[in-house]
Amino acid sequence: MPISRQQSPMDMAFEEAEAAALRGEVPVGAVITDQSGQIIAAAGNRTIELADPTAHAEILAIRKACKALSSERLTGLDLYVTLEPCNMCASAISFARIRRLYYGCDDDKMGGRGFFHSSQCHHAPEIYDGIGAQRSAQMLQEFFRNRR
Amino acid sequence: MPISRQQSPMDMAFEEAEAAALRGEVPVGAVITDQSGQIIAAAGNRTIELADPTAHAEILAIRKACKALSSERLTGLDLYVTLEPCNMCASAISFARIRRLYYGCDDDKMGGRGFFHSSQCHHAPEIYDGIGAQRSAQMLQEFFRNRR
Repeated sequence: MPISRQQSPMDMAFEEAEAAALRGEVPVGAVITDQSGQIIAAAGNRTIELADPTAHAEILAIRKACKALSSERLTGLDLYVTLEPCNMCASAISFARIRRLYYGCDDDKMGGRGFFHSSQCHHAPEIYDGIGAQRSAQMLQEFFRNRR
Repeated sequence: MPISRQQSPMDMAFEEAEAAALRGEVPVGAVITDQSGQIIAAAGNRTIELADPTAHAEILAIRKACKALSSERLTGLDLYVTLEPCNMCASAISFARIRRLYYGCDDDKMGGRGFFHSSQCHHAPEIYDGIGAQRSAQMLQEFFRNRR
């Protein structure tokens, strides 16, 4: 019997990003895992579909995970996202008390990781960047090239 | 026949804040109006009730207004909120293209209006602060005093 290889959280985040692109949304995907590595929530960007400027992948994943756990805090949980979170999502990550943030490529224009170093930030996650950075950057470049 | 006095958007935001306090939520209320001053959305803070760290009054009001207008942008619309928006809400206000932001008291600890001056911010509203500032500050002080 073949041993089934479990999909990594970042692979799943990329699948969410690809699905977002197919919906015409900026391709960003996010996944939240618990302490044992189990996936609690996964989401892709849906700002257009939901007509909601706050419906970034990270926000949707945080809201799903909070709902699943009936808690407004995700203490000890980790977030994987294909792109550096924007300033809004950085705040939400802080409010949710995310333990570790793993992300793909930096976002030079909208990246919000600087928020974690500000005086308004009362919880900052450990940050691991550059996870699948090239794949993420390529996906975004392709998406914006096709939209022109 | 008595002339009925229309409630001001800020009065309504205060009502939302008071209702939030009665639910045990940090008392903050927000209202969104269109170009003719009509109220499109109103909301109070519901982070505990909804187990959602993003359920600030401003975010809920923006999401309601966007849903009502089937648009992820609220170009030309104004937001009234009893407290200076936090960094997360400032970003959402920017994404939603809110025209004017009217708010009550400053939030020295969590206030996010500084975001509007950052390089990540691609739309900043006109800002009118100090609207009912004393009432807002008193309400918050009372709430936190009672919680101790």
